[in-house]
Amino acid sequence: MVTATPMQLGMIGLGRMGANLVRRLMRDGHKCVVYDVNAAAVSELETEGATGSATLEEFVGKLDAPRAIWLMLPAAIVDSTLDALVPLLASGDTLIDGGNSYYRDDITRAQKLAEKGLHYVDCGTSGGVWGLDRGYCLMIGGETEVVTRLDPIFKTIAPGIGTADPTPSRPANAGGTAPEGYLHCGPNGAGHFVKMVHNGVEYGMMAAIAEGLSIIKHANAGKVDRVVDAETTPLRDPWAYQYDINVGEVAEVWRRGSVVGSWLVDLIADAFAASPELEQFSGRVSDSGEGRWTVLAAVDEGVPAPVITTALYERFQSRELGEFTDQICSAMRSEFGGHAEKK
Amino acid sequence: MVTATPMQLGMIGLGRMGANLVRRLMRDGHKCVVYDVNAAAVSELETEGATGSATLEEFVGKLDAPRAIWLMLPAAIVDSTLDALVPLLASGDTLIDGGNSYYRDDITRAQKLAEKGLHYVDCGTSGGVWGLDRGYCLMIGGETEVVTRLDPIFKTIAPGIGTADPTPSRPANAGGTAPEGYLHCGPNGAGHFVKMVHNGVEYGMMAAIAEGLSIIKHANAGKVDRVVDAETTPLRDPWAYQYDINVGEVAEVWRRGSVVGSWLVDLIADAFAASPELEQFSGRVSDSGEGRWTVLAAVDEGVPAPVITTALYERFQSRELGEFTDQICSAMRSEFGGHAEKK
Amino acid sequence: MVTATPMQLGMIGLGRMGANLVRRLMRDGHKCVVYDVNAAAVSELETEGATGSATLEEFVGKLDAPRAIWLMLPAAIVDSTLDALVPLLASGDTLIDGGNSYYRDDITRAQKLAEKGLHYVDCGTSGGVWGLDRGYCLMIGGETEVVTRLDPIFKTIAPGIGTADPTPSRPANAGGTAPEGYLHCGPNGAGHFVKMVHNGVEYGMMAAIAEGLSIIKHANAGKVDRVVDAETTPLRDPWAYQYDINVGEVAEVWRRGSVVGSWLVDLIADAFAASPELEQFSGRVSDSGEGRWTVLAAVDEGVPAPVITTALYERFQSRELGEFTDQICSAMRSEFGGHAEKK
Amino acid sequence: MVTATPMQLGMIGLGRMGANLVRRLMRDGHKCVVYDVNAAAVSELETEGATGSATLEEFVGKLDAPRAIWLMLPAAIVDSTLDALVPLLASGDTLIDGGNSYYRDDITRAQKLAEKGLHYVDCGTSGGVWGLDRGYCLMIGGETEVVTRLDPIFKTIAPGIGTADPTPSRPANAGGTAPEGYLHCGPNGAGHFVKMVHNGVEYGMMAAIAEGLSIIKHANAGKVDRVVDAETTPLRDPWAYQYDINVGEVAEVWRRGSVVGSWLVDLIADAFAASPELEQFSGRVSDSGEGRWTVLAAVDEGVPAPVITTALYERFQSRELGEFTDQICSAMRSEFGGHAEKK
Repeated sequence: MVTATPMQLGMIGLGRMGANLVRRLMRDGHKCVVYDVNAAAVSELETEGATGSATLEEFVGKLDAPRAIWLMLPAAIVDSTLDALVPLLASGDTLIDGGNSYYRDDITRAQKLAEKGLHYVDCGTSGGVWGLDRGYCLMIGGETEVVTRLDPIFKTIAPGIGTADPTPSRPANAGGTAPEGYLHCGPNGAGHFVKMVHNGVEYGMMAAIAEGLSIIKHANAGKVDRVVDAETTPLRDPWAYQYDINVGEVAEVWRRGSVVGSWLVDLIADAFAASPELEQFSGRVSDSGEGRWTVLAAVDEGVPAPVITTALYERFQSRELGEFTDQICSAMRSEFGGHAEKK
Repeated sequence: MVTATPMQLGMIGLGRMGANLVRRLMRDGHKCVVYDVNAAAVSELETEGATGSATLEEFVGKLDAPRAIWLMLPAAIVDSTLDALVPLLASGDTLIDGGNSYYRDDITRAQKLAEKGLHYVDCGTSGGVWGLDRGYCLMIGGETEVVTRLDPIFKTIAPGIGTADPTPSRPANAGGTAPEGYLHCGPNGAGHFVKMVHNGVEYGMMAAIAEGLSIIKHANAGKVDRVVDAETTPLRDPWAYQYDINVGEVAEVWRRGSVVGSWLVDLIADAFAASPELEQFSGRVSDSGEGRWTVLAAVDEGVPAPVITTALYERFQSRELGEFTDQICSAMRSEFGGHAEKK
Repeated sequence: MVTATPMQLGMIGLGRMGANLVRRLMRDGHKCVVYDVNAAAVSELETEGATGSATLEEFVGKLDAPRAIWLMLPAAIVDSTLDALVPLLASGDTLIDGGNSYYRDDITRAQKLAEKGLHYVDCGTSGGVWGLDRGYCLMIGGETEVVTRLDPIFKTIAPGIGTADPTPSRPANAGGTAPEGYLHCGPNGAGHFVKMVHNGVEYGMMAAIAEGLSIIKHANAGKVDRVVDAETTPLRDPWAYQYDINVGEVAEVWRRGSVVGSWLVDLIADAFAASPELEQFSGRVSDSGEGRWTVLAAVDEGVPAPVITTALYERFQSRELGEFTDQICSAMRSEFGGHAEKK
Repeated sequence: MVTATPMQLGMIGLGRMGANLVRRLMRDGHKCVVYDVNAAAVSELETEGATGSATLEEFVGKLDAPRAIWLMLPAAIVDSTLDALVPLLASGDTLIDGGNSYYRDDITRAQKLAEKGLHYVDCGTSGGVWGLDRGYCLMIGGETEVVTRLDPIFKTIAPGIGTADPTPSRPANAGGTAPEGYLHCGPNGAGHFVKMVHNGVEYGMMAAIAEGLSIIKHANAGKVDRVVDAETTPLRDPWAYQYDINVGEVAEVWRRGSVVGSWLVDLIADAFAASPELEQFSGRVSDSGEGRWTVLAAVDEGVPAPVITTALYERFQSRELGEFTDQICSAMRSEFGGHAEKK
């Protein structure tokens, strides 16, 4: 965290992410006015130094013009919130959508808000529940002048340059804010576009790690009896699958010096440390939009993205969305081979 | 079916496939000596004109030298059967493995049998429960002289030239047996190699058809309510997914004139005609070896086979073999985002 | 082909598909009025019995009200053609889009045309260059009354019931037109939706067959020398890859009795018969929209479609659209391992 | 690096990896005897303090019994080196294979060496050209007693506990060496098994990152003209693909605070910093065995690994190994649609 020129920011949406953004901003000297439909969330931040507000009107009233207002809301309710908020604003105010909006909505919104003299910034925000201390990686889209004006806010939220070693080949005079963990990616939508793809990459990396650890977990396949019938392939080399490997320790060892070292490996090592069999997880993996949109973009652009797409479909399959497909395959097998399904 | 020079053939293994091969051979004038550990299966074919035998010794004794013996057995018990059978045979006899052996076992077996003066033929046999009337597609590996000697047997088992239209560009004098539905593919193992890949292709085609019909089935996705929360992506264009399409009728219409017309589409149309919701199938799709071996061959050869491999993995997933992978992904999501799993 | 109640149909677009549709209709006794920007195409069909027209005005004038007009045009020029055509039409006329429009455009168009009292039918048409004799599989969307009125047209264009064996489990009294090769799938867009998915399935089936034949082609991998260095994996079992298999003959043998028997296998057998090494094909595989849209639909619906999607991406990769991705992977390998790229 | 109890180690194979292991060991006080077929590599390390040797005999002679000998060789020449080396050794000596042997060879070798009273340790070594300073992640298989005896060697080579933050949920008294970056995974083969899967995971992560950055690179697809014909899909929403995003800066910003933060992202940021267009890389991505073996293990175990496998196939495709597959698809398109290939 960098001590920056203090600014005032309004925050709407005080869930985990929104509340922690406020905390990180206040720690660095910024002033925050906050609002949430949940009054308790407002009260809690008031005790920590924020200026609370009970209504959108009060919230807007407490902000100095030109206002800077950050929305940290589920994508599905951004537009309805804007419908209520925009009539209260004045020309020159800026709205920042820090959630996971579809980048195309950013383009449309920015155009509509511009007609009212309002500025719009889309800001993809990565970092999850650890961001309060670790900082958030920010991928920003919008007009250059507006993004520049908000620089002290972004600088505080971002992790800061010291949180990773310098990139050796990067010239000392390269400039730019990327080494501090925030980047103005382009005009409106560009921030959420990059964040969208970030999440697609995240799906692919998670799946690669998970598949690998699962292969290691099942390195004892030769010890397990398999049924012998025409429907089941016997394992040809059971002697080669006799290992009982501690998967959690493998994740831990990969954290240092390996090529796959990554925050995701750090996290899964932590999960295994807490719960060696992960028994509290049934394996229904949600997808929250960006992965799907990444695939749509790949297809539109004509860029092959088989790994990211496969990772998305693995999530669908974890939630049994392929069930009808499987039933059809079983039905075909029954038709041509008289194969009854195995239970 | 073609009336061929009558021959004598011994059949070991009178399951559905073996019994129907015998029937098809007898219909065309061949003599069959049959054996199975299940005496009832032997008796049934005796009533249809076959010569039964109660033991392997009796079976071998009833065959004229040089003997031609067809094994129609699960791959897992071929070797143990050979161990019992081979000591009873004489130099010059031929063994035909018509099951789904791994082609590498063919190579090994042929070498060992050759040391005893025995011939070995591997014969991939496709056609399933419909083969008695439709004929079986035969993919054959072995010595040319031996395969040629058995030609009347293969000719009878195969569908015959009239069962499909001639290939327009194929020269009238091209020769060969492929247009009759059987092919000597190469030396030992080549027959099962081609059959193995045939099954890999089958997995891919089945999955393509099944996925497509599933997409059509869910063309009503816009009618179904989805939960609205940060974990679930709302469908952006529900108006575009308002169709209730009869999937069985789609399969039926694709049977004529379409590019996807195929026996597999014929079969799934039949399955839907019998059971419009396929409710008797839970969707646990078995894989019986050839699909796996096809992938191993692709990887060894360095030939990309993403579609066939993906189809194999879809089958694994249909049987929940990816569960630990999914648990790991859920655990990572919980770590970085505090995402609880949705039930 | 079925002799049907004669009707009059106007056809706009006399490329291969449009011209052959006209021919098939005239053979069965229907009257056709035709138009194309290419006057030579019009003249040619006039010599075969069609009524030609030099302008859209003349074309419309020669059709009896209520008119039935079939458009057989590239998707990209349908809307501009409609812009010119619609002002010439009268309430009660019907437009049929037989091309490959995106089904969402059908929904929009039908709504706009309905405001003018015009009917719209979307008709996915499969069959390619062989359809003149083989018939075309038709997947139809639109109002029931309108589709019913056009039934004689569809019946003639479709292959007819005798072109495939009856589906055994289909009740004799099941009714419907699917067994004749055409199907009213639902309201507007449903026809092109089903055709879209048909093409997605086609991509998957083609890829499965092509991958399989390629694995068979490379069954001689053990004969080919590989470089031995840290960058290249030696083949562990070269003895298992010593086959020179005639891939064209494999395709031919699969045409009869196998599980993968299909029109696509028929076609590739023909291609190999004409050109055993396929040397005239460099392997740049186009995709013409439906495959992409199928993937978009799968993602929107939340239906896993890994095989179809993988087949689409294989096409992208055949045209080197993944080049930047590959460069990035090479760059990473160079960074961590000092691996120089192999030329 | 941890100052450990000094030991003596023999190193055979002084390529980049082997030489740097020696350097790292000597820095920490260990004594190294070295050998390579390349005398210059031996001389260079002698000047840095190692004891050189001109022949294997001399090398063995300079080591104190019981000897500890590390082999850092291409997998393909390990066995021939052992053939020459083993006759020179004495019962109780230990051989460590630090290269990328197939884990099944470890099992076989260990059994054969045990007959001579020799111990064998397989040690998967990750870290690449950066390992000298960063340390190497070690995944070890072998007898517990032997691995324990070599602990000071492993401890020095591994990165050490301070090179990553502690895993929060890991109990303070959990023990084990994984937090130092080395792990005894199980009996012989277990080390290379885990290293093999590590590389498979690496392939998947690399592909995910590369695909994502490629999608970002092509976010300007709407600016590029596409041909309009029946073979090419027009982009429906060109307005949504108008971004020129600096891909290198995106990689840099993802290094801090994002979910995809990883060593691989660090490396690609470095590659872009050095060469913004990566023009020196043509995109032919090698695979060096472990990726393939990981897929074979997944298939054998019945564990779906679609992401890792897809990443492997992407590498095959980058080297045009799918060319025949693509030619077949083009040939089919030509057959059914008269589609000429686009150049």
